[in-house]
Amino acid sequence: GFASKSFEATLFPGDGIGPEIAASVREIFVAARIPVVWDEQHIGKTPDPRTNSMVTRENLDSVLKHKIGLKGPMATPIGKGFRSLNLTLRKELDLYANVRPCFNIPGYKTRYDGINLVTVRENTEGEYSGLEHEVVPGVVESLKIITRKASSRIAEFAFAYARENNRSKVTAVHKANIMKKADGLFLECCREVSAKYGDIKYEEVIVDNACMQLVSNPLQFDVLVMPNLYGDIISDLCAGLVGGLGVTPSMNIGMNGLALAEAVHGTAPDIAGKNKANPTALLLSSAMMLRHLGRRQEGDNIQNAVLGVIAEGKYRTADLGGNATTSDFTKAVIDKLE
Amino acid sequence: GFASKSFEATLFPGDGIGPEIAASVREIFVAARIPVVWDEQHIGKTPDPRTNSMVTRENLDSVLKHKIGLKGPMATPIGKGFRSLNLTLRKELDLYANVRPCFNIPGYKTRYDGINLVTVRENTEGEYSGLEHEVVPGVVESLKIITRKASSRIAEFAFAYARENNRSKVTAVHKANIMKKADGLFLECCREVSAKYGDIKYEEVIVDNACMQLVSNPLQFDVLVMPNLYGDIISDLCAGLVGGLGVTPSMNIGMNGLALAEAVHGTAPDIAGKNKANPTALLLSSAMMLRHLGRRQEGDNIQNAVLGVIAEGKYRTADLGGNATTSDFTKAVIDKLE
Ligand SMILES: CC(C)[C@H](C(=O)O)[C@@H](O)C(=O)O
Ligand SMILES: CC(C)[C@H](C(=O)O)[C@@H](O)C(=O)O
Repeated sequence: GFASKSFEATLFPGDGIGPEIAASVREIFVAARIPVVWDEQHIGKTPDPRTNSMVTRENLDSVLKHKIGLKGPMATPIGKGFRSLNLTLRKELDLYANVRPCFNIPGYKTRYDGINLVTVRENTEGEYSGLEHEVVPGVVESLKIITRKASSRIAEFAFAYARENNRSKVTAVHKANIMKKADGLFLECCREVSAKYGDIKYEEVIVDNACMQLVSNPLQFDVLVMPNLYGDIISDLCAGLVGGLGVTPSMNIGMNGLALAEAVHGTAPDIAGKNKANPTALLLSSAMMLRHLGRRQEGDNIQNAVLGVIAEGKYRTADLGGNATTSDFTKAVIDKLE
Repeated sequence: GFASKSFEATLFPGDGIGPEIAASVREIFVAARIPVVWDEQHIGKTPDPRTNSMVTRENLDSVLKHKIGLKGPMATPIGKGFRSLNLTLRKELDLYANVRPCFNIPGYKTRYDGINLVTVRENTEGEYSGLEHEVVPGVVESLKIITRKASSRIAEFAFAYARENNRSKVTAVHKANIMKKADGLFLECCREVSAKYGDIKYEEVIVDNACMQLVSNPLQFDVLVMPNLYGDIISDLCAGLVGGLGVTPSMNIGMNGLALAEAVHGTAPDIAGKNKANPTALLLSSAMMLRHLGRRQEGDNIQNAVLGVIAEGKYRTADLGGNATTSDFTKAVIDKLE
């Protein structure tokens, strides 16, 4: 065996099926001898006035301290007047980039084959400004904010990511034919950054056409970079091409290497506590987390074991058409690791 | 034979392949004995100060007079300071609804089967307000405008369309979890209208999830209604599912029955004038135009002939993998009519 440097990481098991899939990750990390010390965090049950949401100051401090975290699904709290959990985490931790690799799961058939792209979504501004008001009764305006700072930062991230991951092209997705100033500024920043990356091809595609191309000819894409809402839409679209949010990983990145990997699927309250949940999205996200920490081999080991079990087909959870329990699947991944 | 009431209609052949596909429609209408008198209109070559675009006052007056028109693709003019042709037509003619039926073309295989849905897009406001400004250097705000008036109008249109066309469900697409006020108002209007249509099922879906569902499980949808930008994106996505803009019809609808059917694909300058263009999108749009005029049988005849020729496979244009010329295809449609 080998012993690698241990590290601490925040773990938000989350709600619904969250605790079960988080337990699966924990078990598999133990079996894979990944020397993590989890700092388990739970969102509060009442709004914390210091964050104006259920996310507590302690939750945030844990991620800020360890600079790395893994997050399960969280139930959307009912009621108004405080912020959503996801938005609070993004905002308070300045998680400016959302990265979602999208690839076919070997052996799990969808209508598409050979997909291998990455969406890079600006995660802090755009249509998510929260600035809205009713101008006169029946007339609402909602502000989309695009800044040079955030646009250059996400463009820089996308190109650096492409280079680091041996990807050859970055495509900026926009609607600058209509939002000439806002999306025009976004494109301007992408063009400026692209000029510094002569080794990476740069292209632009209008968001409506991007969606048409993604469903008809997705293999033309490599890394896609875009403002917040287009990223929200396109990352889900892409997940749909390869099997949905249950099998697609995601990671949010902030400044100075801070990162929070997360399963972006829901809490699935109908199957919560029944040992039926599929931990794949959280496991693949944990692999992203490991790679982000420079622990590429460990990340690859986890990912290969997960994909290997799905490919073999014997242990698949119900969402993938099988009848394995979460425990069966977890055990199979552990067996595959060894 | 039979003689039906004749009518006048505006025809914008448009640019690039526009004149060729418009000629195909003209020939096929003659062969089908559709008693139309076309009022052919051409966009100006310099901006008209009265419309602030290449669209002339005469162009608009023609459509306003006949209340019905058919439009080929138009080249996007280069340069700034005047409005795009499409936006000018929508704005000046108050074409508030864009309707795009989306269905598989029999015999033309894509990854999807059995698709049969209709997107209804609000066409006048939302992210297309044109209201943008740079607040301070490097900070742009772009206004999305949602009004009760336009939202109720499009919701009413969608439900009435559903009822008239024997469709059973309307799904409102939104992002009201983020744009609580803007998209919230849109949903409020849809809900109010839905209450008047007890025979039509009503559902709501968040735009990111809508796109994921559309690529993985599109048969669940029937009529989709949404604000401008989501409609722009989703109508193109849907076209991508069944073969692209070259085979999908579109119609824009205004007040008092005014309507402008159009092929939404590009001008394809590379093949313009070479007798290679596929007139399918314009022909299917002309069928929508006929049905809109209450000439359902004539519309169905055209559509069935077009689909019949494609299904047989002998005469397909290059974009559909065949080697028929525009003339070959046109002749085949005419033969099929008879
Ligand atoms: C839950 C919702 C606020 C969120 C978003 O819109 O960003 C989700 O769709 C996502 O992509 O993480
Ligand atoms: C050409 C462009 C302005 C237009 C739009 O964005 O509406 C097009 O994409 C469409 O869907 O008709």
